[in-house]
Amino acid sequence: MTLSRADLAALDGADPLAPVREKFVLPPGVVYLDGNSLGPLPKATAAAVARVVEREWGEGLIRSWNAAGWIDAPAKVGDKIARVIGARPGEVIVADSTSVNLFKVLASALDLARDRRVVVSEAENFPTDLYMMEGLIALLGGRHVLRVVPARDIGAAIDAETAVLALTHVNYRSGAMHDMAALSRLAHERGALAIWDLSHSAGAMPLDVSGAGADFAVGCGYKYLNGGPGAPAFVYVAERHHGVFRQPLSGWLGHAEPFAFEGGYRPAAGIARCLVGTPPILSLAALDVGVDLLLECDLGAVREKSVRLTDLFIGLVEQRCAAHGLILVSPREGAARGSQVSFRHPQGYPVMQALIARGVIGDFRAPDILRFGLAPLYLRYVDLWDAVTGLGDVLDTKAWDDPTFHRRGAVT
Amino acid sequence: MTLSRADLAALDGADPLAPVREKFVLPPGVVYLDGNSLGPLPKATAAAVARVVEREWGEGLIRSWNAAGWIDAPAKVGDKIARVIGARPGEVIVADSTSVNLFKVLASALDLARDRRVVVSEAENFPTDLYMMEGLIALLGGRHVLRVVPARDIGAAIDAETAVLALTHVNYRSGAMHDMAALSRLAHERGALAIWDLSHSAGAMPLDVSGAGADFAVGCGYKYLNGGPGAPAFVYVAERHHGVFRQPLSGWLGHAEPFAFEGGYRPAAGIARCLVGTPPILSLAALDVGVDLLLECDLGAVREKSVRLTDLFIGLVEQRCAAHGLILVSPREGAARGSQVSFRHPQGYPVMQALIARGVIGDFRAPDILRFGLAPLYLRYVDLWDAVTGLGDVLDTKAWDDPTFHRRGAVT
Repeated sequence: MTLSRADLAALDGADPLAPVREKFVLPPGVVYLDGNSLGPLPKATAAAVARVVEREWGEGLIRSWNAAGWIDAPAKVGDKIARVIGARPGEVIVADSTSVNLFKVLASALDLARDRRVVVSEAENFPTDLYMMEGLIALLGGRHVLRVVPARDIGAAIDAETAVLALTHVNYRSGAMHDMAALSRLAHERGALAIWDLSHSAGAMPLDVSGAGADFAVGCGYKYLNGGPGAPAFVYVAERHHGVFRQPLSGWLGHAEPFAFEGGYRPAAGIARCLVGTPPILSLAALDVGVDLLLECDLGAVREKSVRLTDLFIGLVEQRCAAHGLILVSPREGAARGSQVSFRHPQGYPVMQALIARGVIGDFRAPDILRFGLAPLYLRYVDLWDAVTGLGDVLDTKAWDDPTFHRRGAVT
Repeated sequence: MTLSRADLAALDGADPLAPVREKFVLPPGVVYLDGNSLGPLPKATAAAVARVVEREWGEGLIRSWNAAGWIDAPAKVGDKIARVIGARPGEVIVADSTSVNLFKVLASALDLARDRRVVVSEAENFPTDLYMMEGLIALLGGRHVLRVVPARDIGAAIDAETAVLALTHVNYRSGAMHDMAALSRLAHERGALAIWDLSHSAGAMPLDVSGAGADFAVGCGYKYLNGGPGAPAFVYVAERHHGVFRQPLSGWLGHAEPFAFEGGYRPAAGIARCLVGTPPILSLAALDVGVDLLLECDLGAVREKSVRLTDLFIGLVEQRCAAHGLILVSPREGAARGSQVSFRHPQGYPVMQALIARGVIGDFRAPDILRFGLAPLYLRYVDLWDAVTGLGDVLDTKAWDDPTFHRRGAVT
């Protein structure tokens, strides 16, 4: 069936999430397909950040730690994120970066697993996850082993030696999604713990870390949570591990009584022991707005739109760009896919630069992947048409064959 | 010699730093003596943050990582801080919190020290420093020992077993300052490395980490650097250790080629290997303004004023409050003191609350310490008079003997 732009406009007319787009700043002339790298600015964020800077910091000064509730912000925003990922209040807190949080929970899990020495992960996991595992294992003196396998071999790789299964729920390049519940169950059946990195799924679909039996989770604040560049990350620890888990970055704000200034560390009772240093209040204010915006939406409807957007995008690319040898990297089946679609093309880098120059902002991932994030909160169905038309034009006219588009920035 | 308010006004008239005060937002009716906990808001910060939020994030979106130089911000601001602490370009980078940075450098130092197993520190060090040392040592399986001693015994505690001397340059409670050069030299003579936490000195005086021979240093962005609540911290690694130091929080931004997305970690060549996750861009923008403001000042003049302020404050308190049994905790000799003055009082907590209620904002530190930060960039000499008058009144009238002032907030 051939689709037309009018078909897509009709879908926008019937989209229950259509009004949410109005809550974002989206520059004119841009189709933004990179919200899975950096979510766009919610309209309410600038005023929220300005209030923190000018009123709370400027006028309140140090008093704002109590008076403006700064000290409670990591737990308060954490409890909101708990609703996004299906955790209970008190199981999630905002702190540090995803990488640093992964270090905390991996160390905690290896401590709980004691005699078991193997960490199982996916070879195509996001590199920082693998690097952090590598760093911790080296620090622990090489008593542990990192076993990375292709996605299809993960089940078989979990055995009686496995301490921890540590995976990213949705793959950053392909968008392929693991079955969190099934793999967590398998890990538990074999006596291992399960850690999930939700960076590419939190905010794009309903999640149920409790129901899935996840032991620990971490995730990113600046993708589908729309918290801004370098927003602080979140960390989840299942309540059953509270009181027993030990995370090694034992900073003062994770102490049972930080302001008693005791000489020895006594961890706080619950998730607060995942705090380390002083929380980044400006960035937390921005993240809070992004999460609030998401909580106003029905996450089931978000997922439904996400699957439809990605299905349609694949269909449109295959309809418009069939001649150009793009290879679909993402799963064709919606249920197995996150909120992005990726294609391989030998000239992936300059193709994406040429497309960005036309106002269609996607992403490139080495070595040859064109990645399109399709975030349901602010994307219109007609945007898919316009994006694919742009891509088709770039390929038809070989617009990418221009030295400008081959020049690499520091961030590619 | 008895001082009058007019004497102090005369000092303000001759103060070369007096115009710098105009660059800060200081609420009317407030004497702010807590800039060593949270520096006040520079007037230029609100616009700088708003520009990052509205223009760079809102309009530039993901493109700003290259176009607005976000990716270079940690190194750029780090190079500025290098000038504040007497390091060379490329030796300092902004990342994470002070606590997390201490973990990185302590792990690096213990790795370099190999066969040596003792970490020497001060019993009265800021608790998070001790907690982080404790956390790392526990993680390493107890092969190391944390030897904490009173300040006067530090020299004697450094022996042939000592791997690392890890100290905070200026004590957070007493304001007592260590001789960084002498203690680093002593550590080196005995085959140990020296780590310095500069949280309570960076920005309050000229520092010379290079000349002092410090191996590693960390420090805080939200005290005398005026970077805002929870501003990111900095980390310094002496160039002679570049290429060989290994820090275990091996996140993707510390990789030699983060955007190659390689499966294995290859550390960046220099200080960049201290980066972990994505840098907090909003907070970095605020920190940048605070550091710029400091770089416009002569740090020698800053120190000169700091010593004069603290000398005068001690004199004024002893002149005005002699009857009330305040005990000076800070060194009486200016050269041995940072930019703060602390006194013990059995009713320290409610006294400080009553004082804050009168607009004189100092700090309380458990169990009984009144702490006054005297930051030379924005404090006037007459402010000392007004603060001490307020303190005298609170003590004379027993204004602290009111239940309101005994109620504790989450942050005390």
